[in-house]
Amino acid sequence: MKKIIKSSLAVLSVLVAFTSCNNSEKTASKSGALSNNIAEKVYVAPGEHDSHYAFISGGYSGNLTVYGLPSGRMFKEIPVFSQFPTSGYGYSEETKPMLNTSHGFIPWGDSHHPDISQTNGEIDGRFIFINENNTPRIAKIDLKTFETTEIIEVPNSAGNHSSSFVTENTEYVVAGTRFSVPVPQRDMPIKDYKGNFQGALSFISVAPETGNMDIKFQILMPGFNYDLSHPGRGKSHGWFFFTTYNTEEASTLLEVNASQNDKDFIAAVNWKKIEEYVNNGGGTMMPAEYAHNVYDEHTHTATSTMKKEVRVVNPIDVPGAVFFLPTPKSPHGCDVDPSGEYIVGNGKLSANLTVHSFTKMLDAIENKKFDGDAYGIPILKFEDVLAGSVEQPGLGPLHTEFDGQGNAYTTFFISSEVVKWKLGTWEVLDRKPTYYSVGHLTIPGGNSGKPQGKYMFAMNKITKDRYLPTGPEMEHSAQLYDISGDKMELLLDFPTHGEPHYAAAMEANLIKERSQKIYNLEENKHPYAAFTDADTKVVRKGNEVHIYMTTIRSHFSPDNIEGVKVGDKVFFHVTNLEQDFDVPHGFAVLGQNTSELLIMPGQTKTSIWEPTKVGVWPFYCTDFCSALHQEMQGYIRVSPANANTPLKWSMGEDIE
Amino acid sequence: MKKIIKSSLAVLSVLVAFTSCNNSEKTASKSGALSNNIAEKVYVAPGEHDSHYAFISGGYSGNLTVYGLPSGRMFKEIPVFSQFPTSGYGYSEETKPMLNTSHGFIPWGDSHHPDISQTNGEIDGRFIFINENNTPRIAKIDLKTFETTEIIEVPNSAGNHSSSFVTENTEYVVAGTRFSVPVPQRDMPIKDYKGNFQGALSFISVAPETGNMDIKFQILMPGFNYDLSHPGRGKSHGWFFFTTYNTEEASTLLEVNASQNDKDFIAAVNWKKIEEYVNNGGGTMMPAEYAHNVYDEHTHTATSTMKKEVRVVNPIDVPGAVFFLPTPKSPHGCDVDPSGEYIVGNGKLSANLTVHSFTKMLDAIENKKFDGDAYGIPILKFEDVLAGSVEQPGLGPLHTEFDGQGNAYTTFFISSEVVKWKLGTWEVLDRKPTYYSVGHLTIPGGNSGKPQGKYMFAMNKITKDRYLPTGPEMEHSAQLYDISGDKMELLLDFPTHGEPHYAAAMEANLIKERSQKIYNLEENKHPYAAFTDADTKVVRKGNEVHIYMTTIRSHFSPDNIEGVKVGDKVFFHVTNLEQDFDVPHGFAVLGQNTSELLIMPGQTKTSIWEPTKVGVWPFYCTDFCSALHQEMQGYIRVSPANANTPLKWSMGEDIE
Repeated sequence: MKKIIKSSLAVLSVLVAFTSCNNSEKTASKSGALSNNIAEKVYVAPGEHDSHYAFISGGYSGNLTVYGLPSGRMFKEIPVFSQFPTSGYGYSEETKPMLNTSHGFIPWGDSHHPDISQTNGEIDGRFIFINENNTPRIAKIDLKTFETTEIIEVPNSAGNHSSSFVTENTEYVVAGTRFSVPVPQRDMPIKDYKGNFQGALSFISVAPETGNMDIKFQILMPGFNYDLSHPGRGKSHGWFFFTTYNTEEASTLLEVNASQNDKDFIAAVNWKKIEEYVNNGGGTMMPAEYAHNVYDEHTHTATSTMKKEVRVVNPIDVPGAVFFLPTPKSPHGCDVDPSGEYIVGNGKLSANLTVHSFTKMLDAIENKKFDGDAYGIPILKFEDVLAGSVEQPGLGPLHTEFDGQGNAYTTFFISSEVVKWKLGTWEVLDRKPTYYSVGHLTIPGGNSGKPQGKYMFAMNKITKDRYLPTGPEMEHSAQLYDISGDKMELLLDFPTHGEPHYAAAMEANLIKERSQKIYNLEENKHPYAAFTDADTKVVRKGNEVHIYMTTIRSHFSPDNIEGVKVGDKVFFHVTNLEQDFDVPHGFAVLGQNTSELLIMPGQTKTSIWEPTKVGVWPFYCTDFCSALHQEMQGYIRVSPANANTPLKWSMGEDIE
Repeated sequence: MKKIIKSSLAVLSVLVAFTSCNNSEKTASKSGALSNNIAEKVYVAPGEHDSHYAFISGGYSGNLTVYGLPSGRMFKEIPVFSQFPTSGYGYSEETKPMLNTSHGFIPWGDSHHPDISQTNGEIDGRFIFINENNTPRIAKIDLKTFETTEIIEVPNSAGNHSSSFVTENTEYVVAGTRFSVPVPQRDMPIKDYKGNFQGALSFISVAPETGNMDIKFQILMPGFNYDLSHPGRGKSHGWFFFTTYNTEEASTLLEVNASQNDKDFIAAVNWKKIEEYVNNGGGTMMPAEYAHNVYDEHTHTATSTMKKEVRVVNPIDVPGAVFFLPTPKSPHGCDVDPSGEYIVGNGKLSANLTVHSFTKMLDAIENKKFDGDAYGIPILKFEDVLAGSVEQPGLGPLHTEFDGQGNAYTTFFISSEVVKWKLGTWEVLDRKPTYYSVGHLTIPGGNSGKPQGKYMFAMNKITKDRYLPTGPEMEHSAQLYDISGDKMELLLDFPTHGEPHYAAAMEANLIKERSQKIYNLEENKHPYAAFTDADTKVVRKGNEVHIYMTTIRSHFSPDNIEGVKVGDKVFFHVTNLEQDFDVPHGFAVLGQNTSELLIMPGQTKTSIWEPTKVGVWPFYCTDFCSALHQEMQGYIRVSPANANTPLKWSMGEDIE
């Protein structure tokens, strides 16, 4: 390998040094100095409920975690992009199709930015969307059942990072590529990146009633890195904004080579204009392969369909649709205030925080005040679109949220703090340290026209001494602040699970009222469901053995099975007959090369067992369900491949 | 399927009814009525640490979770028996062998009863053991690194439930079968269970220095269900006690058929006597197949060895070693008090709570006061071994722990409460409700001669309305009580992750002081490790391509790779060069059919990618590591199978 001179590394190493926190900083206030008030502010007494839901990205867990605020307690981990042995998600026959892609079955994902569906610019609590970064996908979770019900792969994309943010009526969930790639993919030298790679910005339509997703169009942009995005709202509804970095189009050592330009861009996309263009037949249908996976809550089964083409739009074919706003320097977060007027570009290598004006942008566009173009896309003049700057507010700004009271809150990774500042005057009002090295922050309702600004929480990237040590690996840490007063007040450190990139949060009531308690057995349309003892049976089809089984406190039916042979593929189709909230049953059989099933009341789930050894093997309920849970077991006999043991089954009496 | 008359079901259905909690019970005290004291008692201010570690079984997650007390915050999920996409455990080449068994690779387990290693009857915080119930195994976690470092499969066993409890110097970790099976396994009718199935109790030796596990012997017992166990201690050190149920030896509808006998047994095993017998050549080496998986923290790699035989002991060959203590009725927990004198049999269908006396037991044995035998094992007389009974303390007793102050605390599943009672006088001192339907409870240091009785927490099986709803599936709930006063005081509800069967807990200091922060690069003996740029390379061996790669803030080396072809099997061997606490890097490449790698400082981990499509594909760091984390990416070019693209790699300069 060739040796290189890392010319800019010395300059940048100061940034790295700032992120090391070997000197164990602690909050100045010890609990002795904290008033009782603070403990009470986060304490949710037994029998009472938290006031807010927080849906925190699991990051490299591939999942989405559900927390309560202000307690910081984790109530659920919803499996989305990763196999989840706990419930059998991605292992059971019904859920494996959810993880299908054009690259085959993928057991893992890197989830990033959850965003709750909106109606009229307010979050409505119906669905939550989240992106997968590595093998680009967008998932939808139904907030009635808290289950992942749809995943769509995003073709022509790589590092699906500027995603998954919704427009103000959830017309679209938007996904933008972080890494540009050859489009279509082809065998070419990496060094020919510049001018040849492209970045796709995907607009995925969401059907108003069902929420069904479909890729309406992709805009094929220059080969920059599209880092984050947010929708316009209010006056800027119809536009979408994306930060870019690596406008240098470097393909190696980006920490140096993509940190050269003083300004990169925010791409402003008039999606209504492009939608109109597309509705009139604009764009090109391009061959592409991408999976669309849908979970049916009546069959309790997912299906995966491979799509074969996608509509792509060349932005220079739609004049007036896409513009570049120069923004210093390698901006990360791209945040739009509740009014839709201000677009904040969090330039992570910039001394100042840049805020653009939507009104000024429209004016500059109307007056064609362009400063050249990039690959045919007009560049507006920095001064013409600038609303203002927050001067030297901190080091390494990443993300900004809003409280709906005219204030903005920006995280600074390097100086490890949250800074509160005023929209319009750009004055800094308050700053509070975060331990350590904060990434995103969330205010409930933050990405909407109506933030619910009582709490703010910071999601920190480095934990070190914040908790009791757990060896070399520590969970990331979140910090909850009360922002109802003039000054932010730190209330609580709470650990997260996985890597919390972003979180969406909202007041609890809307979701709480609609939360489903059971699946109605009468609506169970699973083809292998059994509803009574009369439905239970064991059916052989060649070397497949299908067991139609029921569970109810505290037995399986059947619970004795004979006639299975080595080499068979045994399908346990287990229906949970319970119709009582919070009474799942589990199922596992010894030696199975897959996970358990965790079956909610009214559901049917299927697990495969391919026994390799003769014997009498037990199965049992894995979820302590009743006083006689330990008695909830059965046996299945496995005979040699050439045996003549007849297929028989029973419950309550011996097999004769 | 034959219809059966469920004669006893009506009687038992009352038990089931008790476990339904549709009427949303709440604690009487609302937060308004709670004193500030309670909030403060559980509040751990930012920058301060919890006083206790709690290691809570993940149950059907297959893992072990680490909590802090009194805050109830989860600090880590340690993957043990299940694949863990978050870190790549069970996906990376180094960790896949940990999940190997005689049935092949198993991606899931059902973990139950963690127990911390002991020295002189006190917990020493070196290791924690936990059992897998479904495909019987015992795991050991090193509390220096919080990593699973050893898993041993348990042959001749099924439903490995009366496990994994340690003797007072960690001489053995003990595992007992819940389900009896044919030993050795064979093709036989299930109806011939009675008298033909057997239950294995396994004594796994733990090497004093290294902690290495080995199955010393298995006792082949009658075909009952061995439900739980605990070691003797103090005066009863050298003995081990196991509850049994299904002494009826039923094989179907156990909720009825295994609930017939008024008394089942506690099996008392003099393991010192059997150890001596075995040391003198006693027992039989029996063919068996079981995996022994060991993780080496210097190569950062696990190896799996298949063992071929195990020593079995017929208990009637060792007179004086095994006795049965009659115990009403279907006893679940088998708990020994800190002095070693009292053995509590928590008869889950019994009106009273039965406590046996070790002293009386020895006396009865000495005087041969037997009441017949079961399969040759002497049965002692109930009255001769009874220390006393707690009269009608509650419904459905499951487990008992001790505070070291002469008090015992028993959970009652059906009446949903914890009852405090006095050892020796058997009087009930206090009772507090638990919401809902408590299983195990834990007092720090509980399973030892020196409980640290400030806190107790109950692990409840049913959650319902205790938290904000999350659809049909709710996390299980724990409740923390202050037990330092005469009466128990409920402090906090906190959710758990997976199913918390049991937990081991202890004061924090011992573990905290020894917790390792990084892996020393100098001790990294991974065969594919790279330590400098000079070590990084790409090597082709047939269709295998091995990439020796390093990571350091904020780049991979190499970060441009060409010459890979469709059909290749690409091994990314990634060494994290950081030597700073809490600076992992992650690795993922687009389209990979496995999980990410999460690589701790000083570690090397390996991920396989088998590209099926030509193109230029990105890889990136999945763990936000620095201000320039977003720049930490690279590209790998995949050419057609028959291409001649030369194998080249670089970092910082283009590949020419």
